[in-house]
Amino acid sequence: MKNHIISIRDFTRREIDYLLEKAGAFDTRSYDRHALDDKLIALLFFEPSTRTRMSFETAMARLGGKSISVDSVEASSIVKGETLADTIRVVSGYADAIVLRHPKEGAARLASEFASVPVINAGDGAGQHPSQTLLDLYTIRQSMPLDGINVGMLGDLRYGRTAHSLAHALSLYGAALHTIAPPGLELPANILHDLRDRGMEVIQHEDVSDVINELDVLYVTRIQRERFPDSASFYNVTSSYRITPELLGGVQEHLLILHPLPRSGEIDAAVDRLPYARYFEQSKNGVPVRMALLHEVMQ
Amino acid sequence: MKNHIISIRDFTRREIDYLLEKAGAFDTRSYDRHALDDKLIALLFFEPSTRTRMSFETAMARLGGKSISVDSVEASSIVKGETLADTIRVVSGYADAIVLRHPKEGAARLASEFASVPVINAGDGAGQHPSQTLLDLYTIRQSMPLDGINVGMLGDLRYGRTAHSLAHALSLYGAALHTIAPPGLELPANILHDLRDRGMEVIQHEDVSDVINELDVLYVTRIQRERFPDSASFYNVTSSYRITPELLGGVQEHLLILHPLPRSGEIDAAVDRLPYARYFEQSKNGVPVRMALLHEVMQ
Amino acid sequence: MKNHIISIRDFTRREIDYLLEKAGAFDTRSYDRHALDDKLIALLFFEPSTRTRMSFETAMARLGGKSISVDSVEASSIVKGETLADTIRVVSGYADAIVLRHPKEGAARLASEFASVPVINAGDGAGQHPSQTLLDLYTIRQSMPLDGINVGMLGDLRYGRTAHSLAHALSLYGAALHTIAPPGLELPANILHDLRDRGMEVIQHEDVSDVINELDVLYVTRIQRERFPDSASFYNVTSSYRITPELLGGVQEHLLILHPLPRSGEIDAAVDRLPYARYFEQSKNGVPVRMALLHEVMQ
Repeated sequence: MKNHIISIRDFTRREIDYLLEKAGAFDTRSYDRHALDDKLIALLFFEPSTRTRMSFETAMARLGGKSISVDSVEASSIVKGETLADTIRVVSGYADAIVLRHPKEGAARLASEFASVPVINAGDGAGQHPSQTLLDLYTIRQSMPLDGINVGMLGDLRYGRTAHSLAHALSLYGAALHTIAPPGLELPANILHDLRDRGMEVIQHEDVSDVINELDVLYVTRIQRERFPDSASFYNVTSSYRITPELLGGVQEHLLILHPLPRSGEIDAAVDRLPYARYFEQSKNGVPVRMALLHEVMQ
Repeated sequence: MKNHIISIRDFTRREIDYLLEKAGAFDTRSYDRHALDDKLIALLFFEPSTRTRMSFETAMARLGGKSISVDSVEASSIVKGETLADTIRVVSGYADAIVLRHPKEGAARLASEFASVPVINAGDGAGQHPSQTLLDLYTIRQSMPLDGINVGMLGDLRYGRTAHSLAHALSLYGAALHTIAPPGLELPANILHDLRDRGMEVIQHEDVSDVINELDVLYVTRIQRERFPDSASFYNVTSSYRITPELLGGVQEHLLILHPLPRSGEIDAAVDRLPYARYFEQSKNGVPVRMALLHEVMQ
Repeated sequence: MKNHIISIRDFTRREIDYLLEKAGAFDTRSYDRHALDDKLIALLFFEPSTRTRMSFETAMARLGGKSISVDSVEASSIVKGETLADTIRVVSGYADAIVLRHPKEGAARLASEFASVPVINAGDGAGQHPSQTLLDLYTIRQSMPLDGINVGMLGDLRYGRTAHSLAHALSLYGAALHTIAPPGLELPANILHDLRDRGMEVIQHEDVSDVINELDVLYVTRIQRERFPDSASFYNVTSSYRITPELLGGVQEHLLILHPLPRSGEIDAAVDRLPYARYFEQSKNGVPVRMALLHEVMQ
C-alpha cells in the first residue's frame, strides 16, 4: 500500500476495496483498541475544517493513539515564519504521521516529499480530500455493491471537489453518473471528458425530477452563496435544487441520499426523518474510514 | 439518573446527594483511573470559558478518557455553516458524550433533543451551568452538612447565573439566604418569589457587615464594569462590596468564603491567607464533580 | 534536582550533565512508555509558540501522559479577567505540572511562587527558555564532548535570547565563543563582561569567513526584519550573514551547524543536504530533552 495518502487518483480499485474492507473491520465492537497505543499524529490545519479535524482525532483516539494539533490561527503564524517544507521537517521530528489540511492545491504532495513520516491529505484547496471520497464510497457500499449503480450528483458540480473525486472513484466501478447542476455550476468539461474516456456513462439533466426515480444514490452538494452575483439569483437556484419529501414520492426504496455536510438548505429538514437520508451516518463513517487510513500508514 | 445534565432544576435533592457522594469517591487516591479508558468526549465551546474547558478535560483525563475540543474561534465558523441541530448530530457520530457551552439560553436543552449521546451543559447564556452549582455545593458539604445553613450572597445577584442556581439548590436543603447586592443588581423579583414559594427564608441586607458574623458561607460573585454607566459609580460600588481582612474580624470560625472565579477585586488578596478563603479549593473541586458527571452519563 | 525549571542559570554543570544523560536515556527505543501514565500537564501559552507547544505535548505523549492546553487567544481573555497569580493557582488545581510561555520576563519565576505544582518555563519574553538551551547542548553533545570546543554564534546576538542562554551554559564547559553579528546587533556589553568574568574566551569577528574553518559548532540565529530601519539595510545585512555551501568549503569535517528555527533565509536551502546541517535533528532533540524535564519534575 501507499506510504502517503494524497489523492484518490493514486489508488487502484483493488487498493480502494482493501481500504474499505479495512474500514469495515474497524466499524465493529471487536477491533483492537490499542492498535496505535504508542503512536502520535500531528494535525496541521492551515485552514479551518473542524469536522475533518474532529473525525481524525476521534479515529486516532479510537485506536488508542494521541493527537497534537495546530489550528488555522496558529498555522497562519507558522506560515509567516517559515516554508511549508521546514514546518513539515520539524513536525516529522515529533509525530508518527502528519494529517495536513491546506488551502493550496498540491500542498499535500509537496509535504510528502519533505516528510520523514507518512502524510495524509485532509484536503488541499481545489485538490484532493481522499478520506472524504473513501467515506462516501464506504457509505454506499454498506447498502449495495458499488458496481454499475446509478449515481445522481446534484448541486455545485463545478467547484465541488468532493463530487469530482467521488465521480472519479465511481468510474472504477462501472457506475453511471447523472449530473444535475445549476447553469454555470456544471461539471467542468475536462472532468467530463476524463470520466467518459475512462468508460463512464455520464448523463446531464436539467431537472432532478427527470432522473430521481431511477437513482440508487443521490449525492447532494452545497451551493455557495458567493458563486452568484446577487441574492435573488442565488435563491432562485437553490429553490430549484432543493430536496424535499414531495420530490421523493416515487424513488426506489433503497435510494441513499448523501451530502458531505455542512448543508445549508439544499436538503429540507423534513427529509431527515425519511429512510433515504444517510448523511449523518455518512459523516459518522468518517471515523472507521480514517481509522483504516491511520492504521494503514502507521501499523 | 439523568441521561443528560442540563439544569440543576432537573434534579431532586436525592439525586444531587447521590452525585455529591459520587464526586467524593473520585476525590480520593483510590478510584479507578481506567473507568472511562475507551471513552471520548467532545467539548463544544461556542463561547470561551477556559477554566470550565480545562476542568472537564482534566476530569476526563483523570478517568483515563480522551477529549476532542472545538474552541470558540472554530465554533463561530461552524455557526455560520450549519444549525446547532446538525452540528450536534455530526458530533454525536464521533464522541461518547458532548459537553456544550453556548451563549444562548436553552441551547443545551435543544442539543439534547438532537444528540444520540449524552449532553452536559457547561453553561448556556443566562441559563444553567449545573456542574458549577454542584461544585459549589460539594465545597460547602466538605466542611458542613448543607441542611439549614446561613448562606450570604454578595455582589451582582441580578445577572449572576451561578448565584441563582446555587440559591435554588440550597432551597432544597432548608438553607437561609442572605442577599447583599448593590442597587440595581439585586436578586430579580421572580427568583426571590420562587425561592420563598419553595419555603426558603430570604433576607435582603444593605451592608455585608450587618450579617457577616452570622454566616456559615459567604458566596461572593463578580461585579462587572459593564453593568454601570460610568467608572465612578462602578468604583463606588465595588469598594463597598469588597471583602477585606478587617471585615472578617468577628466572623464564625468555620465561615467559608467562596467565589466562582475569576475575581476582579471583590476579594482582597490579603484574604487569601485566611482560613476562610476556599475559592481555590472550590475551583479544584470542579474536577471530582465533573468526573462524577462524566462517569454518570457514560458508565 | 529542581522542583521548577525556570532558568538555565539556576543549574550547575553537574545538574545539566544529569539532565542531558537523562534525555539520552529517553532517546532510545527502550524507555518506559508508561512512566507518566497518570499524569497531566497544563500548557499555558500566553503568546504563540507552536513548535515549543507541540514539542512539549509530544514529549508528554511519549511518556504516556496527557496535556491540556490554553493557546494565546484563550490566554488573552484570561489575562483580562484575572491576575497571573490567580490563573496559576486555579490551574494548579487541575494539572500535575504547568508549562508556561509568557511575553513578560520574570513571569515564570512569579508563577512558580504561586503554583502548588512544578512550573517549567517555556520562554518568558527576553528572559529564559531553558529547554531550548538544553536541547542545543544535547545536540552538540551527541557529536562531541562539550569541553573546550570552539563555538561560533552568528546573527542577532543582541536580542537573541537563545544565544545568550547557550553562551552562558557553554561557559560552564570551558568553550570558546566566537561572535559574528551585524553592527547594532552585537552581544550586549553586560553579557560579554559576564561571560569573560566567568573565564570564557570570547572573540568578536566581523566576518564569519575569518573564523568558520576553526569552529566545531556554528550556531546561527534569526535576524528579524523589524530590527532594521528599512528593507534595504535589512537585505544588505542578511546577505552578508547568510550561510551558503560556498562558505563551507574549508570547514572542519565534524562542524555542526545549528539554528533554533524557524529560519528565514539565514541558511541557504542547499546547506540542508550537507552533513554539517543538524538543525532539524536539533529540533527533534527537543522531544527527549523535554521528556527528561517533565519526568524530572513529576516522577
